[in-house]
Amino acid sequence: MKVNGEKYTSIWCKDSYRVFIIDQRWLPHEFKTVELTNLAETVISIKDMWVRGAPLIGVTAAFGFSLSMITDTSNNNLLKTKEALLETRPTAINLHWAVETMYSFLINIPENKRLKKSFEKANELLNSDIQKNSKIGEFGFEIIKNISDQKKSKTVNILTHCNAGWLATVDWGTATSPIYFAKENGIDIHVYVDETRPRNQGAQLTTWELYHNQINHHLIVDNAGGHLMQHNEIDMVLVGSDRTSSNGDVCNKIGTYLKALAAHDNNVPFYVALPSSTIDWNITNGIEQIPIEERNSAEVNFVQGKNKDNQIISVEIAPEGTKSRNPAFDVTPSRLVTGLITEYGIFKANYDALQEIKNKYLEKSY
Amino acid sequence: MKVNGEKYTSIWCKDSYRVFIIDQRWLPHEFKTVELTNLAETVISIKDMWVRGAPLIGVTAAFGFSLSMITDTSNNNLLKTKEALLETRPTAINLHWAVETMYSFLINIPENKRLKKSFEKANELLNSDIQKNSKIGEFGFEIIKNISDQKKSKTVNILTHCNAGWLATVDWGTATSPIYFAKENGIDIHVYVDETRPRNQGAQLTTWELYHNQINHHLIVDNAGGHLMQHNEIDMVLVGSDRTSSNGDVCNKIGTYLKALAAHDNNVPFYVALPSSTIDWNITNGIEQIPIEERNSAEVNFVQGKNKDNQIISVEIAPEGTKSRNPAFDVTPSRLVTGLITEYGIFKANYDALQEIKNKYLEKSY
Repeated sequence: MKVNGEKYTSIWCKDSYRVFIIDQRWLPHEFKTVELTNLAETVISIKDMWVRGAPLIGVTAAFGFSLSMITDTSNNNLLKTKEALLETRPTAINLHWAVETMYSFLINIPENKRLKKSFEKANELLNSDIQKNSKIGEFGFEIIKNISDQKKSKTVNILTHCNAGWLATVDWGTATSPIYFAKENGIDIHVYVDETRPRNQGAQLTTWELYHNQINHHLIVDNAGGHLMQHNEIDMVLVGSDRTSSNGDVCNKIGTYLKALAAHDNNVPFYVALPSSTIDWNITNGIEQIPIEERNSAEVNFVQGKNKDNQIISVEIAPEGTKSRNPAFDVTPSRLVTGLITEYGIFKANYDALQEIKNKYLEKSY
Repeated sequence: MKVNGEKYTSIWCKDSYRVFIIDQRWLPHEFKTVELTNLAETVISIKDMWVRGAPLIGVTAAFGFSLSMITDTSNNNLLKTKEALLETRPTAINLHWAVETMYSFLINIPENKRLKKSFEKANELLNSDIQKNSKIGEFGFEIIKNISDQKKSKTVNILTHCNAGWLATVDWGTATSPIYFAKENGIDIHVYVDETRPRNQGAQLTTWELYHNQINHHLIVDNAGGHLMQHNEIDMVLVGSDRTSSNGDVCNKIGTYLKALAAHDNNVPFYVALPSSTIDWNITNGIEQIPIEERNSAEVNFVQGKNKDNQIISVEIAPEGTKSRNPAFDVTPSRLVTGLITEYGIFKANYDALQEIKNKYLEKSY
């Protein structure tokens, strides 16, 4: 999507073996790009959230394999690389999926071809991500168009949580992809952006990308969505997912569950946009089985922003020494989910519906 | 309650005609007290939230009348005072109640007695607030004790939203009063404190007062409560109210409704602690009839905290110029409320139950 009118993806490879990312830690205040040159840098970029968002984490991890092959193409290093990448973030399933895809692909290839092939494969995953999100956009657009038709072309108001935007993927985004498609197709669209504490991905990233791509929006605190739904100011909730169980329970950024409850209580459709690689086929109960990353309390006690001198700093919001809990994700039970928008179409959030994806399409996908 | 081991109330009157408040804007980082010397200062202290919390706003407004009488005891000034105070905050019903109480009391008193009588009356409201909150504490304690008994004395985990603490009242608080009583009676109690964006009253005030009064607690972001309830980490939600309709719909700080939904979805009891003066007998549908204050967008776009140099500053968290919506309260429908803890006992959140308060006790109360 666009930044200052120029086309970007969140990660890209050029000159064969060079990998670049947008360092998202400084957005929206500073737009920085950096080159990742080895595995260690890639691990840090995922762990410390220079890149974030389940699909982008997956693609970045894939390039972590490629960069690791530059110095050592041995089986031993393949295993080490796999382990180092798997340890970065515990919740996002795309990470596992990308790492396993790369590992099982490369382990079966002669050592002397691994470097070249690893970049080819990572680029394949990158392009596949763009294509999947584009399909999600097409399918999701139909839902938005129906709402617009029912409202007789009045503004369609969508609430989104966290950043499931193009910055969380390679391009298009998951939850934002239908929004970008709707805008391109002339729908009068407006987005309420949850700020998404503790890391404020909504305030920092979603507002930024919507601004640069001319989507009308208002920022709201995470507390406000229920009130707005109660007063008919939201037509649809549209979020992404970090992992969805085979029965349709949706793990996503902490607070998503509260919005799903409010949507259900007010008859507002609640959709989740996700590539099928986000589905964890081994898990049948998301609430009980998906591990929830508990991050450090500094994320809760400190807030990052720009001071009067345009410096990006953190301020402490609670008494010094206050203890915090910081679960990073929650799980929305499938009963609260209206539908899952995937690259293969829109599916009900239940076991049987999702099996159709597995049975019909899965061999084709990465 | 205590600050650094010393006993304080949030507002106090001394030397007959001198009124002091804790200027809560700098908490938890700086503890400042200021003297209010006239009506204009009182209006600013309410409007700009030097004091906040429905009960404290009411008592402060009462002293606004007293201070206004120092310079002018005329009927005309009584009316002007009433109007100036009513305009400060639109949602809290205690403000209306205190202002009307003071006005109707003073208008019937000879001018030359108004100054003295106005201070007497305001002090009466102040003391009455302390007594009511103490009663709320006693009644609410029984609920906590029952939970503790059922859990066989394991830690009782309470989630609270915003600050319905002693800082929101004169003393004891509403939602915190049962917690302080439970602690005093030896219950092993632990509080999860919602930070309560946009103004972070939970992070700034509730954590501070719980710390100074030795109540175990953890700070959490507003997004986290649903997840904790889903995993049986919360035994009870306990909040205050800015206005409760005669049918039991509870208006409170924005985001309360989301916690009530999560409590309901997870069979966690959801209690509201409030003095009966918070009940608006003229309103039978809180969602449709309670006006919701929409505050300025700077509260959403900027976050106040302490920088590395111990200065209290604001940082901007979103792209410059981002538009925000900022509804300050929401309404939790009565169907989600387990009970209302008042100074007269615990009542179901419905019209008939609340009429009992009106019929049985109201003549006695202020």
